[in-house]
Amino acid sequence: MERYRRASQILLRYVSCETRSLSKRPCGSSIAGQSRIQEQFIREYNTKLRNVLPHSMPRVCTRTVQGSRIFCLDRPCGIQGRSYSSAATYAQRNPSYSTLNSSDITYFRSILGDKNVVQDEDRLSAANTDWMRKYKGSSQLLLLPKTTEEVSKILFYCNSRRLAVVPQGGNTGLVGGSVPVFNEVIINMASMDKIISLDKVNGILTCEAGCILENLNNYLTSEGFIMPLDLGAKGSCQIGGNVSTNAGGLRFIRYGSLHGNILGLEVVLANGTVLDMLGTLRKDNTGYDLKHLFIGSEGSLGIVTKVSILTPAKLLSTNLAFLACNDYLSCQKLLFEAKRELGEVLSAFEFMDSHAIDLVLGHLEGLRNPLPTSSYKFYVLIETTGSDESYDKAKLEAFLLHSMECALVSDGVIAQDISQASTFWRIREGISEASVKLGAVYKYDLSLPVEKLYDIVEEMSQRLGDVAKVVGYGHLGDGNLHLNILTAEYSDDILAKIEPFVYEWTSMHRGSISAEHGLGLMKADKIHYSKSSETVQLMASIKKLLDPNCILNPYKVLPQSVL
Amino acid sequence: MERYRRASQILLRYVSCETRSLSKRPCGSSIAGQSRIQEQFIREYNTKLRNVLPHSMPRVCTRTVQGSRIFCLDRPCGIQGRSYSSAATYAQRNPSYSTLNSSDITYFRSILGDKNVVQDEDRLSAANTDWMRKYKGSSQLLLLPKTTEEVSKILFYCNSRRLAVVPQGGNTGLVGGSVPVFNEVIINMASMDKIISLDKVNGILTCEAGCILENLNNYLTSEGFIMPLDLGAKGSCQIGGNVSTNAGGLRFIRYGSLHGNILGLEVVLANGTVLDMLGTLRKDNTGYDLKHLFIGSEGSLGIVTKVSILTPAKLLSTNLAFLACNDYLSCQKLLFEAKRELGEVLSAFEFMDSHAIDLVLGHLEGLRNPLPTSSYKFYVLIETTGSDESYDKAKLEAFLLHSMECALVSDGVIAQDISQASTFWRIREGISEASVKLGAVYKYDLSLPVEKLYDIVEEMSQRLGDVAKVVGYGHLGDGNLHLNILTAEYSDDILAKIEPFVYEWTSMHRGSISAEHGLGLMKADKIHYSKSSETVQLMASIKKLLDPNCILNPYKVLPQSVL
Repeated sequence: MERYRRASQILLRYVSCETRSLSKRPCGSSIAGQSRIQEQFIREYNTKLRNVLPHSMPRVCTRTVQGSRIFCLDRPCGIQGRSYSSAATYAQRNPSYSTLNSSDITYFRSILGDKNVVQDEDRLSAANTDWMRKYKGSSQLLLLPKTTEEVSKILFYCNSRRLAVVPQGGNTGLVGGSVPVFNEVIINMASMDKIISLDKVNGILTCEAGCILENLNNYLTSEGFIMPLDLGAKGSCQIGGNVSTNAGGLRFIRYGSLHGNILGLEVVLANGTVLDMLGTLRKDNTGYDLKHLFIGSEGSLGIVTKVSILTPAKLLSTNLAFLACNDYLSCQKLLFEAKRELGEVLSAFEFMDSHAIDLVLGHLEGLRNPLPTSSYKFYVLIETTGSDESYDKAKLEAFLLHSMECALVSDGVIAQDISQASTFWRIREGISEASVKLGAVYKYDLSLPVEKLYDIVEEMSQRLGDVAKVVGYGHLGDGNLHLNILTAEYSDDILAKIEPFVYEWTSMHRGSISAEHGLGLMKADKIHYSKSSETVQLMASIKKLLDPNCILNPYKVLPQSVL
Repeated sequence: MERYRRASQILLRYVSCETRSLSKRPCGSSIAGQSRIQEQFIREYNTKLRNVLPHSMPRVCTRTVQGSRIFCLDRPCGIQGRSYSSAATYAQRNPSYSTLNSSDITYFRSILGDKNVVQDEDRLSAANTDWMRKYKGSSQLLLLPKTTEEVSKILFYCNSRRLAVVPQGGNTGLVGGSVPVFNEVIINMASMDKIISLDKVNGILTCEAGCILENLNNYLTSEGFIMPLDLGAKGSCQIGGNVSTNAGGLRFIRYGSLHGNILGLEVVLANGTVLDMLGTLRKDNTGYDLKHLFIGSEGSLGIVTKVSILTPAKLLSTNLAFLACNDYLSCQKLLFEAKRELGEVLSAFEFMDSHAIDLVLGHLEGLRNPLPTSSYKFYVLIETTGSDESYDKAKLEAFLLHSMECALVSDGVIAQDISQASTFWRIREGISEASVKLGAVYKYDLSLPVEKLYDIVEEMSQRLGDVAKVVGYGHLGDGNLHLNILTAEYSDDILAKIEPFVYEWTSMHRGSISAEHGLGLMKADKIHYSKSSETVQLMASIKKLLDPNCILNPYKVLPQSVL
């Protein structure tokens, strides 16, 4: 770190800026001086020196303020300079990668056309930064291919030139997987957004990778189908990104994983080879089913260009119950009973502890506890989706009554209309938003055996004592816990009490340190907590087989040490 | 072929047998001579010479008949010498494999104990032959490991000795994947049959690979769950084999593929490395999901030793309707409507054409058409499974009524009791049995887009004219057609009219030449009809990465030309 600080100091002195380290400057502060020489050196800093610095170092950019051009430090406030909660080890740029030159740009323009070869500062800045503004790269080039052939030509060229690339979809990931770490070329798939076909008998949709999830769902709904996945980010995320990250989401308990729903993929490998695995068949046992390698590999084995997916019929009746349980064991038993008694119509089973509810009700406006008469330790949301409104509702009512008779449920209410259902969902979905209102939040997304799932919340609470509030909630039906630890402010002491304990505990119980978010840059070096070393070694061998120059999404998914 | 025939003739003369070629002898015919020298040479023929002959050449074995030992030609009658319907190209034994010696036996005994190292002729004969008696190897050794560690030791040893092996489960496959081609060592998993755990909240079963599917289902049923797959072979097939062949079966339309249901695997690689991927989590996005490589790779990438699988809750109500449609388009529309109106309770959608029904009713005893008043072109079986007997039945009745009003269904009946439901299923399941009663049958198991699925039946019927009856039936809900072509006797002329046409047609419509049976030995060299050459090349690269000496299930799945 010291040598980077020195390097930046030398640079800053050279361009007549103040001698204070860039890293200590507040976001957006200006750097004096606008001469041509300064501008040239700042450009060199941005394009060359900064690429070998950790990506926490700010980029110097130009802004026009009251008619004058000034230089600013462009960095999201504080988030990036200090990463709490699963802090990524900042990688060093791999020196074997080439740096872009003007012939590269000329070539890309020749195959994509000028307007799809983006060097505009503002557009690059957006593409370099993840939506949380937690990760930020310094790519100088954003490419927007329109066809598989173009993707193939780009990769063939980049592979032969050893130019590292980052495949990018809607850039809605949570682990820094979709933005460059250094100056990798960004290949954004947004221009490949055509729906290719819909088999209306079997509900099989085929489309390009850049289609936005919500657009696909809207199209399908008009045809009597739905997408088998639904995410908060549906308005921005692309199906290619969903596939590449094996997105989970809200419909998982009902329709399962993308490994079960994706029927075919077209993928371009690092060397430009197009793998046509775009089958649209429910059954096909002819050789190894290689598409699964690309589902969830976060763009590090190939770029998904087309997708075919099984889409369920749209069912018309949805019902939602908000229930209270006195202990975690009752939540588990309730899940067991719901799977039996609601079986075929069960479409969500979410749980929240009382801390989570208190947090939402205390910090978000316009919400009240649907069960105000007493306070309970746990709350459960159960949703059913079926084809018969009155029957489905009666079924849920009978289940609720029976569960209360068995004392699994202490109290409960069924939403009487869409507005009330939205309020119930708003409570569940507001937890994340409310969590950040108290100060600092350390967030973990864990998969655990359901029996053990709440133990980590209690152990963590005991471990941290009064300095933190530990909140547990999540997709109980999928064994997916969201563990949020709230404190007044970030502190190394608290982080040291949480990590690696949370990973070790999860590992000891054969859980997953990333249920649905992936590893990206954030947890690439944490993979050993969830996967055996033999398995990680085999992953590395497969990476090297498919991408020997490691040009695809470098520094992500796998620890650099195994590659 | 000529040189094999000559070789066997030379051998037979040497042992004073008749000079007629072995290949022309009927099954079970005796060969004169019982001297020690003859016996020694016959043993040499069986263990050495025959291994380089095509596996259609009969094995010479000894039988005791009326107190005297005689030599017999041991070969299933006619089936193997002439393979109609997807005839496999008989591979030549790969000379890089070693041949068993006494030190090998000593070593295997030291790790497995004497009784799990089987050299007994009768037990070997059974393990060398598939259940159809269509494929037959000449392995001299059957190993029965009891633990993963033993499997690991076996493979480590075989890999270092270059002894080829065949992983074997219940040996119920249909494509010659589970028996040796030459003298590969058979590793049968039957002794690894322990249930390890059941997570009763989430319904996650963990067990050893040798557990028989029916046993697992019986155990689960007693705990309120079912296996998500059900096959005709359930009484013999093992879960490890189901996973390795990505078995489909009867519950596929409801619960989907094993890629969606298998949560974890333990696999031993060719070099003995144990890959612990035995997660029991519904969600785990930490690195590449490598277990999918082993699902459906037919034991050619590793031996599955343990499995964890998501098991659905057992639902109590099942209803079955037997319907008639006048044309194929109505069948398609009916499927479309059933997915919507029956949605969450639909558990089977099978179809049969009138030839299939006529065949069953004409050749199997005790069956009659449930809809005898008229004759229809197509029949459909629709099953629902849910949690409410009376409601589910009413729902199916309403669907049937509505479908008749819309003229999608011409006639229909709902089974009134289990006995009637069994009869309906007996008609559907009896087609295969009835097919062989007419003479010869050429069988194909195709996946096709539902819109095109019946076209191949009609085109094939036109193509073959009066010489054959072409029957179409299958799992319409999964786009899986069983195409049976019945003729008086097998003939090269008819085969030439069927193949490669059937494969080319399937390929042209982006179908699969093996919907659920796999490729095995039978269709290893036909993979190009369903997979692009780039994809097959990548499969071969992965095979070489995981099994560089190609000791695992050689000659199967992939064409020898790409390895």
